[in-house]
Amino acid sequence: MMNKDITPERFMREALKEARKAYELEECPIGCVIVKDNKIISRAHNLRITHNCSLSHAEILAIKKACKKLDSWRLSDCDLYVTLEPCTMCSGAIIQSRIRKVYFAAYEPKGGAVCSCNDIFDIRHGHNHEVLFEGGLLEEESSKMLKEFFREIRDSKKIRE
Amino acid sequence: MMNKDITPERFMREALKEARKAYELEECPIGCVIVKDNKIISRAHNLRITHNCSLSHAEILAIKKACKKLDSWRLSDCDLYVTLEPCTMCSGAIIQSRIRKVYFAAYEPKGGAVCSCNDIFDIRHGHNHEVLFEGGLLEEESSKMLKEFFREIRDSKKIRE
Repeated sequence: MMNKDITPERFMREALKEARKAYELEECPIGCVIVKDNKIISRAHNLRITHNCSLSHAEILAIKKACKKLDSWRLSDCDLYVTLEPCTMCSGAIIQSRIRKVYFAAYEPKGGAVCSCNDIFDIRHGHNHEVLFEGGLLEEESSKMLKEFFREIRDSKKIRE
Repeated sequence: MMNKDITPERFMREALKEARKAYELEECPIGCVIVKDNKIISRAHNLRITHNCSLSHAEILAIKKACKKLDSWRLSDCDLYVTLEPCTMCSGAIIQSRIRKVYFAAYEPKGGAVCSCNDIFDIRHGHNHEVLFEGGLLEEESSKMLKEFFREIRDSKKIRE
């Protein structure tokens, strides 16, 4: 029997905890963890508004921490778990850092670059590192949190109007 | 007559100066400047090896500085000048930060994501910000520096063999 602690679901639950931290900061709730040898080596959540920087997506911040931790620009044998399908920038960063596999929870029909609006990981786009991916892991939990967040934003706008 | 000081060539020359700084650090010579209202608001060069981080491309570092300088994640009305066609990650970062126009010097047949191996800026990929671009500006100067760099790398490997 597979050790319950090292299933992909376990790591996605940790990414969801990161997403919750973003939610509490009134950031769009997206969280990410990076795993090597069945251990989480870095974790981060979306901080775009807090940092006032378009680059501060969960995946970018997690990759930066992982590079620092391993003291290497290559994150070979690392898997990345993120609660929403990565955008073009983050998909490109995943290729640049040689991540082995990406697990994401919710699909992103507006700009998801892995399979919804593009297929960035496909090697026909000129890179020679193939990233594996699996979408839809704990999709419901992530979608629920995202919907709740956007509903709250709409409601708070209505109050101000 | 157009003011000589605010032509695109002038800004690309500044990006080439940044590329030279990377060269001197034995980094792949790529430089970038970001311009708003005909003034350079940030400048950076590739520091991937120095930082040991896959994210430290010239464009990413320049965007980060520009966000900080303008205290905004939106770089509207900003143009980006870079000496090599951006990769997928950097093209995505350019979209995320709402850059108006990208000028690049050399085309990158191995992974250039603007027009060589992909067309990331095309809005059919699901983003609603259209980035304008122009390639080949001072292409020769940039290509010459890149070729010189890769020749030196090959020669130093030969000596070690």
